[in-house]
Amino acid sequence: MDEVIRFILELDKLKGVTRKTRPLGLDRYENSAEHSWQIAMFASALVPQFAPELDLNHVVAMLLVHDVGEIDTGDTIVFAEGGWEERKAAELAAVRRIFGLLPEPQASHFVALWEEFELGETADARFAKAIDRAMPALLNLANNGQSWRENGISYQRVVDRVGPEVAAGCPALWDWMAPRLKAAQDAGWFNIDAG
Amino acid sequence: MDEVIRFILELDKLKGVTRKTRPLGLDRYENSAEHSWQIAMFASALVPQFAPELDLNHVVAMLLVHDVGEIDTGDTIVFAEGGWEERKAAELAAVRRIFGLLPEPQASHFVALWEEFELGETADARFAKAIDRAMPALLNLANNGQSWRENGISYQRVVDRVGPEVAAGCPALWDWMAPRLKAAQDAGWFNIDAG
Repeated sequence: MDEVIRFILELDKLKGVTRKTRPLGLDRYENSAEHSWQIAMFASALVPQFAPELDLNHVVAMLLVHDVGEIDTGDTIVFAEGGWEERKAAELAAVRRIFGLLPEPQASHFVALWEEFELGETADARFAKAIDRAMPALLNLANNGQSWRENGISYQRVVDRVGPEVAAGCPALWDWMAPRLKAAQDAGWFNIDAG
Repeated sequence: MDEVIRFILELDKLKGVTRKTRPLGLDRYENSAEHSWQIAMFASALVPQFAPELDLNHVVAMLLVHDVGEIDTGDTIVFAEGGWEERKAAELAAVRRIFGLLPEPQASHFVALWEEFELGETADARFAKAIDRAMPALLNLANNGQSWRENGISYQRVVDRVGPEVAAGCPALWDWMAPRLKAAQDAGWFNIDAG
């Protein structure tokens, strides 16, 4: 029990890892713990209707652990250029340290969930990645493009970085988002100078 | 898809529902969204070793939805006296409204998860309630009794309000907590004037 308690208190630190998106109606940035909850609920709402062939429980398990490595590395906006492989290597070291607080086989089980999400090779993982990638864009669409404006992100950058993963993992969600992103571009929410 | 998007944006409000506990090392209060994530992870870490007979996926599903009604009602500290039934009736109306944003059968599925948790009659629900009740006490034990001190809570009140549910749902966890709560009392973390 000591190990589990130490583990769950270590996880508390994810509440202090801030992202670039603000919750709707709040001034502060969202953190990776509440984000993880929201996308687990998003998957739970989507799968029965739009991806019933998937294992929802497995998708939720991946989404709950997918950001835990940020306790050591911090969050990186999806639009960052370069350094992606180094960051993922650092996150892997982090999840090995953090999940390694638990006894086996649980430690390896959680690391395996994290790795499956990162690799994105299974249908469950592709769906999970689509949900994770889509959520901040949905918040931005509902929030006047908040994090896109604050970070000078262009329409094309969003389409390039968000579109392929959302379309691959949950085509119906991309069909919903694509025309709304275009409308946001027409409304001037994006940086038109950036590439 | 419109319904699911409206639902997940409505859930965003749970990030703005604050509790009485502060995340370790942070000045702000925790919110019910990040709390829901943490206890889902806590259950995931505990069940394989301490309650392998339970359906972990079902426990996690309950924990993810158990606080959603607070979007309309706000959080109430577990040590509040009276008014419990009225608050729970208001929360039920809230979860019917919020989950009712989704089509059937999903709306009823989520409401049923919330009701099972509240009733606490199944072994899965009793475990989920134990985890939910234990987590703020564990944070307090790691944080110099922060929310107990700020709210003038007595040792006996914690034992009475937290002990039975934790002991009923996860005896090994209560065995771990009980002597540590006693040590916290000896260390003077509790209000000795309150009942």
